[in-house]
Order: sequence, then structure tokens, then C-alpha cells
Amino acid sequence: MTVTAEILAVGDELVHGALLDTNSKWIAGELEAIGLVVRRFTVAGDDPEQLRIVFAEACARADVVVATGGLGPTLDDRTRDVVAGLLGGPLWFDEPSWDHLCGWLRQRGRPVPDSNRRQAMLPPGAVPLANPVGTAPGFRVQAGLAQLFVLPGVPREMQVMLQGHVLPFVAAMPGLTPTAQLCLRVLGPSEALLGERIEPFMAPGRNPAVGITASGGLLTVRIVATAATRADAHSACAATAGELRPLLGDWLFAEGTAELPEIVVQRLARAGATLAVAESCTGGTIAARLVDIAGVSSVFRGGVVAYSNDSKRELLGVPAALLDTHGAVSEPVAAAMAQGARERFGADVAIATTGIAGPDGGSAQKPVGTVCFALARAAGVRAWTVRIPDLGRSFVRDRAVFEIWRALLREPLDA
Amino acid sequence: MTVTAEILAVGDELVHGALLDTNSKWIAGELEAIGLVVRRFTVAGDDPEQLRIVFAEACARADVVVATGGLGPTLDDRTRDVVAGLLGGPLWFDEPSWDHLCGWLRQRGRPVPDSNRRQAMLPPGAVPLANPVGTAPGFRVQAGLAQLFVLPGVPREMQVMLQGHVLPFVAAMPGLTPTAQLCLRVLGPSEALLGERIEPFMAPGRNPAVGITASGGLLTVRIVATAATRADAHSACAATAGELRPLLGDWLFAEGTAELPEIVVQRLARAGATLAVAESCTGGTIAARLVDIAGVSSVFRGGVVAYSNDSKRELLGVPAALLDTHGAVSEPVAAAMAQGARERFGADVAIATTGIAGPDGGSAQKPVGTVCFALARAAGVRAWTVRIPDLGRSFVRDRAVFEIWRALLREPLDA
Repeated sequence: MTVTAEILAVGDELVHGALLDTNSKWIAGELEAIGLVVRRFTVAGDDPEQLRIVFAEACARADVVVATGGLGPTLDDRTRDVVAGLLGGPLWFDEPSWDHLCGWLRQRGRPVPDSNRRQAMLPPGAVPLANPVGTAPGFRVQAGLAQLFVLPGVPREMQVMLQGHVLPFVAAMPGLTPTAQLCLRVLGPSEALLGERIEPFMAPGRNPAVGITASGGLLTVRIVATAATRADAHSACAATAGELRPLLGDWLFAEGTAELPEIVVQRLARAGATLAVAESCTGGTIAARLVDIAGVSSVFRGGVVAYSNDSKRELLGVPAALLDTHGAVSEPVAAAMAQGARERFGADVAIATTGIAGPDGGSAQKPVGTVCFALARAAGVRAWTVRIPDLGRSFVRDRAVFEIWRALLREPLDA
Repeated sequence: MTVTAEILAVGDELVHGALLDTNSKWIAGELEAIGLVVRRFTVAGDDPEQLRIVFAEACARADVVVATGGLGPTLDDRTRDVVAGLLGGPLWFDEPSWDHLCGWLRQRGRPVPDSNRRQAMLPPGAVPLANPVGTAPGFRVQAGLAQLFVLPGVPREMQVMLQGHVLPFVAAMPGLTPTAQLCLRVLGPSEALLGERIEPFMAPGRNPAVGITASGGLLTVRIVATAATRADAHSACAATAGELRPLLGDWLFAEGTAELPEIVVQRLARAGATLAVAESCTGGTIAARLVDIAGVSSVFRGGVVAYSNDSKRELLGVPAALLDTHGAVSEPVAAAMAQGARERFGADVAIATTGIAGPDGGSAQKPVGTVCFALARAAGVRAWTVRIPDLGRSFVRDRAVFEIWRALLREPLDA
């Protein structure tokens, strides 16, 4: 027995390609973690006829439906009306929700436009879900055989309300499938080669199920088990991981779902090493990803975005002679940038990137996509070049950032 | 008459919340731009039964269906089989696709695993769509009354193939609705207040349609018109924009779909001003967004990510006395950081951020979310503080980045 779920995201801006739906993915992860089986996401526009069909179909198929969007105060926010139409009754005005909404706006010194009254209307039989970080309440209502939850589309509000209202309610439903997952992170083979190596584990219907996700040059082997209890599911995942590790050998570089920068920071912290960065074509992306990690200040000293030759000289002490002789995009300059950052930030380890992201700036000897890297330690500095395919500025930049994570995972860090 | 489209994204990792679907949004934008009306996205897992239903339903509803994912070489890649089942015939082996695939792998010095043979199999009646930047061909096939296009899920491959194969084919279909859009960018009011101001324009069924998207503190008024010709649609959008501008007044800060950083760079370029950045809690995010913009090197000199007090002193020349007296998160230190960056990078304008992103580091006087900003010009430096709500490290950082864009859009830049 399983409890199935579907996720709906409502909004013209989504379905016409103006805004990216990140809510559905997040909700799916949270529901799966407590044992629901998510079958489908549907993203639809604000057209009431289309929306009514989408809601009706989802509520006919799944045990739990979580919908986001269309709860704003403006005329194109129609979710409340559509659900009321589906249930065949009128919207009703919820005084407590209105009081909260007025209080919220007044506390911020903002006027209370009449249009906001719309946000305190609920479909027949709906239970309001309080919004502690915004104006619009969500609601929960039985729609056919499904429990339908409707939340605001603003990610922050949706997340707080899913965790505060939806997950506790759903976690108490009978029939949840105890689930566990375990991820093995792989660096080295192509997806096809990895798939061949672990093929027997990927047969359909296997429990634990094993799948491969390729994302940004990185491969993740995702093991998902269902069992009678959460503990049994964990054990099953662990057993499968035990069988997979010998097959992966050196390809395996980490376990868990942490992003690459976090795995790098963990490695540096374990080695008691501090890091500084000297970025040119990666523009601060490496520093920005590091600073995203809570507690990184014990590892990360800082960095320079040396986007011009002047700044490479002034901020990092790269000798003018090197720049003149070899050019900014060269291994000697990358090495000097890394050494300069290491000294100026007093770090154990420093990395540097300097390259041609495009579309302009390429030449015959140094085409667009040529990026030089360096890693400086007390023992010395190593510099190398990668010819990244010219598949656009963002691609070159992202591939260069990935090369730094790869180097910081694989290169020796000790003095 | 309209040509409707639906978009499918296939993959367990998507529907179980492990990976974010960015393809569907991108495809929707491209299809809408040539006049299709996108009705729905569906994201489904790899289960063959579920997938068959999803494909069958979409092909029964829409004129054009674009599906991504499930074309890899491993056992969990089932799209080819599902479509063949839907069409009621066997897969067939396409020799030219196989030759391309082998050549692609050999050229990269990689082995050709047998599992890749799967990728050269096509459903009955399907026309292969060559993949110039990867191994798996896509395909086009008539499925019921729909033209079904299936592309790889790897974003880069999908984008090249959509533009190379799908858009030209679809652009030639009869009945496309000439469409145009125009965006007005608004900074100032809440979404509700803006919605009240322009309410008559947002009535359902209006052509041009007017909608409001709220994203990252920014509001976009999106005007979309359909008409007999593209030129007429453009005129209709322009006419509506003409009626809206007086209603928006000072709230209107830009037009078009450029992201904020690009609008900022355009403003700086028009003023002939160069920029340097001194970032602490924003960690390089501002620099990274700027470097994303082609041609930014004429405006952006570079930046420092001064993540420690030492680096604020060493790299930016912030006096130790200021740090001791006021602390790193203070207006005097922010001002000194901006002035230091301005001098060291030889820029006309410099900005600085220094704050407490959390979860640690807060105090009674300076709770988590306290961020100090500064903008330095030849005429002097202005520093100010914003108390950002503590809604997580990423939220504080993003709000701080947004505050810098706002300042660079609204503050005077001249000497």
C-alpha cells in the first residue's frame, strides 16, 4: 500500500516560460522523505477552464495533491475560485485570516488595499492554513478522495507552510511507505560506462531501486529503498551501497547529497587547511558558492576577482613582465595569481582561474574556452590548462568552476 | 485558431525531487516566442506504465508535444520504448545515428559500450533528430493528431536540438498565433498595490493580456498580445504600455526582460562609469552576476571577497582602528571597504557589503540579517544599514545583492 501524491504549480508566468518553478521539486523531496510516492508534477496557467480540469484530474488520481500559486491578491489569481467551482459551492470569508493579513500589512506600515480581501476567501469545507511569513493563507480541503493542500507560490512562504502544516498532517496518514535513500557520488566515468558497471542494480522493479543522475559533470548513484520500517529501508540501502562500492572503486569520491562545494569544504576542514581564491573568468562564482556554506569562515579566507590585467598586478602582485610575455590567460599568470592570493590572504591553499569565456577574446592559439588553472600550496604551485568546448559563456564558466572543485577534491593539500 | 503545445519532462530524479527541471521553462519560452500557446508541463518518472499514460494524454490534447529525458544509454532510460508501445510497433535500429554516436565517443578517446546501441533505436515512423553536441539522437513522430518531439534531457543538447530541429519545423505549421510581448519592470510598490493601480488591465480575456510576476523583490508587468500579424501584436503591446506608463510613474525603472545586473551594467555604461566591488557577506555573488554579462569588461574592474577582518585590512586598506571600534559589520567599515576598492581598482564607482548572513554571528545590537552597504564615488561615500529578516543564509545574501542592484539603479553615479 502506498500513499501517492501529485504536485501542481499554477501560474501563466510559469507555463509561458517567464518564471522557473522550483517549488514542485522542493515539495517532492519533502514528501518523498516522509514516505509518499510522488507520481507527477503538472504546471498549468491561470486560465480557469484549464485549471479546473488539471485540479480535477489530479484529485481523481492521487491520495495527496499539493498545489502552489494563484493565491495572490490580483485578478489573475484564480486558484480559490477554481477549487470552489470544483467543489460546487461558494467561497466564504474567513475573519481570522483577514485579521492576520491586515495586521501583517499594518505592522510593515503598508496600506491594506481592498483587493487583499480576496485573499481571505476560502473554498467550501476548506481549513485555512496560517501563513506566518506572508499575507495569503493557504488551505486544506477534501476533494473527492484526495486531500488537497493549496499554498502560496512564494517559495519562502510555501516552504514554511509545507513544513508547518502539510508534512505533519500527511505524516500521520496510514499507509505511508517507509523509505530511505543513500547517494554515492561518482567522478570519472561517463554515464554510460557507469551504467554498464552497475547494470544489474538498475533493473526495473528492484528494491532498493538504483538510478544514475548526471548533473554538471558529476554523477550520483541514488539508492532508494522501501521496507516495512524506516530502519529496514536504511539497512537495505546500506547493504546495496556495500555491494556497489567495490564496483565503483576510485570513481567514488563522496557519499550523501551535499553539493560539491560543501564536500570540498569538508575535505579542507578535515585537513585543517585554509583557502583563498583568485578568479578572473569565473568572476567570483567559486567564492560565492563557498560563502553559501554555513561555517565556511574557518576554511575560507577570501578572494579576489581580478577581472583586468591591472587588477591582477595591483591586487595579486602578478609581475607585469609575465602578463606582457605570456598574456593574462597562461599557466605562468595563473600560477602567479594563485601564489599572490595565498600570500595576501595568508591561506594554506589558493586556487586561480584565468580564461576566455567568450564570445569575444579568442584567437588561434587561445580559442574561446581556453582556461588556465593553478593550485598553490606551501610545497609549490601547479598550473594546467583545459580547452573547454565553446558552448557559451555560462557553460565555460561553469565547467571552469567544476574543474576547481575537482582539483580541490583530488589534488594533495598538504604542505 | 491556435497551435497548442504541451511539454513533458521525464525522469525519476525529477519527480522524486532530486533534480530541478529547467528544460520545460526554457522550451516554453522558445515555443511561445514563435506563436504557440503552451498549455501545460507534465513531469513524470521513469515508470513505463505511468509514462505511457502521460504521453498518450498529452498527444491527445495538444497539437505539439515536446518531451525531454529518458534517452540515455542506461536501463532506466525508457522513453523510446514507451513511445514505441504507444504507437504499437517495434523499435528499429538507425545505422547513421549509430555511426554518429560511435564517432562522437571515439573522437573523445572513449570506449563505445554496448549499452549505447540502445540510443540508436527509434520508434516506428520516427524521424531521427541529429544531436550535434552529444550521443543520443532525438526523434520526431506523429502520435495521434500531435507532432511529438523527443529530445535529450541534458540542457545544452536539448537547447541546440530544439533550435536546430524543432523550432524550424514548428514555425512552418499553419495556424500559429502571431504573438508579441513587452515587459515593464517595477520597483517600489507591493504586488497588491501595483495590481490595484493597473487592475482594469488585468481582466481575464483581455488582449493584450497583462499579468504581474513577482520575483526576487522585483515586479514585472508582462504584456502579451496576439493579433493577425506579429507587427500588429507588437503595436498592441506598445499601445498598452503607453497607457500603463503614466499609471506606473516613478515605479517604472526599466523595460524589457534583461536581468537586473544587466540593467545596472547598461546604466553604468551609459554613464561611462567603471565599477569595483568589495564583498563580504555576499561572497562574490555580485561580481559573479556581473561577469555573466558579455562585454562587461568595459564597466567592471574587479572585486575583492574580503571574508575575514584580516583581508578587509590587507586587501582593502580598512584601518584596524575602524574594525576594532565599530566591528566588521558597520557603516564606517563598509564605507572604508568601498573607498578601498575604488582606489585599488581605479574605478569610478565602488560598492561594499558587510553583514551577518547567519545562522551564527548575530547579537542583540546586530542580529542576523543586519547588513551594511556603501557606495563610493569621486564626490564621496554613502553608507547605510538594512535589517534583513532572518529567513536563512541564502535569503539574507540574495536580499543584500538585490539592495546593491537597487542602489546602483537609483543612486547618482556622477562624480
